[in-house]
Amino acid sequence: MRILVVGGTGTIGSAVVTTLASRHEVIAVGHKQGAYRIDLASPDSIVGFFQTVGRFDALISAAGRAAFAALDKLTDTDFQFSLSNKLMGQVNLVRLGLPFANDGASFTLTSGVLSREPMVGSAAISLVNAGLEGFVRAAALELPRGMRINVVSPPWVTETLVARKMDPSTGLPAATVAQSYVASVEGSFTGQMFDPRMLPR
Amino acid sequence: MRILVVGGTGTIGSAVVTTLASRHEVIAVGHKQGAYRIDLASPDSIVGFFQTVGRFDALISAAGRAAFAALDKLTDTDFQFSLSNKLMGQVNLVRLGLPFANDGASFTLTSGVLSREPMVGSAAISLVNAGLEGFVRAAALELPRGMRINVVSPPWVTETLVARKMDPSTGLPAATVAQSYVASVEGSFTGQMFDPRMLPR
Repeated sequence: MRILVVGGTGTIGSAVVTTLASRHEVIAVGHKQGAYRIDLASPDSIVGFFQTVGRFDALISAAGRAAFAALDKLTDTDFQFSLSNKLMGQVNLVRLGLPFANDGASFTLTSGVLSREPMVGSAAISLVNAGLEGFVRAAALELPRGMRINVVSPPWVTETLVARKMDPSTGLPAATVAQSYVASVEGSFTGQMFDPRMLPR
Repeated sequence: MRILVVGGTGTIGSAVVTTLASRHEVIAVGHKQGAYRIDLASPDSIVGFFQTVGRFDALISAAGRAAFAALDKLTDTDFQFSLSNKLMGQVNLVRLGLPFANDGASFTLTSGVLSREPMVGSAAISLVNAGLEGFVRAAALELPRGMRINVVSPPWVTETLVARKMDPSTGLPAATVAQSYVASVEGSFTGQMFDPRMLPR
């Protein structure tokens, strides 16, 4: 398969690339680095990317930023940034990528456990993550030509916790999280939300 | 209690007003009619409303519009309309209403079962409804002064199905749906999603 990994230069994305590269043609797409780049907040940037990279069998997004701040500190701009980047950026990867997707192609987006397990400061992120999960459940009913769509809802990643000097025991290694993306791409699921903590290890 | 019902002139909202009016001071707020009006898509309109109506003990929103259309027919404008109206409109009722809310006040928003039970055409609405539910779960952790927040996720309402000449047997009467709003306002729940089909009848 020809697989595009948006956010393929990040912690989760690079683990996904490494895992899939042994048996597929994998193209990592970055935001500020790499041969291919996308600014998720810009539909024009997304369309330009697809026109350059061409057709694909699977698109994985492990990308998208959203604002983390106390509810009374989140500004209008914080919400708009979160909506246009992590939420609509990933929705637009699907909408704008459809004409470039081969028959039977799959889309795999990324939300996060804060959708269902919020914490102080996560109001905008929880909104965005839950919205993505709602979109995926619905979009799965309408994708044409045998296409599929799923969303992975990762917990904290061990590598990120270590980098931030937080307790790594609450996280999963990126390589383990990557297995959920593999299951979405290589399996036959659609409309599903994958929680990497639930996969057999 | 002094209770504001945004969308209080609609099918669900007017049933909520009728149910609560016997034992509370209830103020119905419309979009295009009524003594008090709000344009949910306009933060200025929301702030102006709160400045006019003054302090409250409960705010109910049974308002907000979102686009229903096939995935390949939903435009950028449809998504932006849905995000700014039903999603951020209700989020902003909370953010902008906080300074006007009395200690221990409650907020009750409205999503809809399409968040978890999508249908063809519901991609934008499912996104919005699920996003609202994610926001409410998170915001409940941070509301100050003993305030609470819940979301009601109504099914199709019988009155709406009859008006549209659809099968009414799959819906619930607005008066039954209204009981979930009553439970949110008069109970002590917070961070909860109420599905009116699950209430004892």
